Amino acid sequence: MKIRIASDEDWPSIYPFYSAIMAEGRTYAFPEGQSLEEAKPWWMEAPPGRTVVAVVDGVIAGSAKMGPNKPGRGAHIGTGSFLVDPAYQGRGIGRALGEYVVGWHREQGFHGIQFNAVVEVNEPAVHLWTSLGFEVVGTVPEVFDHPEHGLVGQHVMFRRL
Amino acid sequence: MKIRIASDEDWPSIYPFYSAIMAEGRTYAFPEGQSLEEAKPWWMEAPPGRTVVAVVDGVIAGSAKMGPNKPGRGAHIGTGSFLVDPAYQGRGIGRALGEYVVGWHREQGFHGIQFNAVVEVNEPAVHLWTSLGFEVVGTVPEVFDHPEHGLVGQHVMFRRL
Repeated sequence: MKIRIASDEDWPSIYPFYSAIMAEGRTYAFPEGQSLEEAKPWWMEAPPGRTVVAVVDGVIAGSAKMGPNKPGRGAHIGTGSFLVDPAYQGRGIGRALGEYVVGWHREQGFHGIQFNAVVEVNEPAVHLWTSLGFEVVGTVPEVFDHPEHGLVGQHVMFRRL
Repeated sequence: MKIRIASDEDWPSIYPFYSAIMAEGRTYAFPEGQSLEEAKPWWMEAPPGRTVVAVVDGVIAGSAKMGPNKPGRGAHIGTGSFLVDPAYQGRGIGRALGEYVVGWHREQGFHGIQFNAVVEVNEPAVHLWTSLGFEVVGTVPEVFDHPEHGLVGQHVMFRRL
């Protein structure tokens, strides 16, 4: 597996699993039913942020975006979002992308990383971020409408760098 | 004091205290040094959100914006942001705007309201939201670069409706 910076030409290869994951509705509160063009600015980050892809045997199997969580007086804290093609789950792609995002923020001189909304019943994600040094700062109750579990909470998670 | 829906024509009357409060840098991690036109989309909400103004003796003395905190599977939770002209502080304008925002979300059928980033040393704000039924869900450390206190935390606050 190789992780490299995403270009505009990669977006049509990301969009199918982006769409599939949003349609599943278990992880992100993003707009529903976005077209290729509508979804693009929701995932493809411009500097000072960055979007990367994870490539397995020449196929784009996952992606992460990262950058300042806020402008101005919050710009020293980063954030990140992650997608792994369901057909490629369980191969460590999420962990590799997570490690990349932590390393990138450290190199860029960020002070910490905040994940704003980790669905509390998304146990693989909570486990992964915890293993990468993130802590649950708090859990906002009932803010995510999960297709199986109904209204569930989202964790705010943070780690210093 | 009267609270009414803001129109585009009100923005030039909001912008001076918006700019003053952003330049003080004690409450919001917004972009710095925004022009009248640059700042407008950061404050003037379109449906399903709303921006209102508080008018005192014919003068716009405060403003609030409100609406869904997230799209899609998070759209049942609202959020709000608040500005009171420093020249009009201490007159209950923030409280009146807060009560308006809570009432509006209730009327619209929202399930709860989340404040994503209340600067922890902004005691008047923390006190006000607590008195309006919000609870601190967690405090993300060192995420706000305060001009006097340095790196301080921000509370995530929530109340059910």
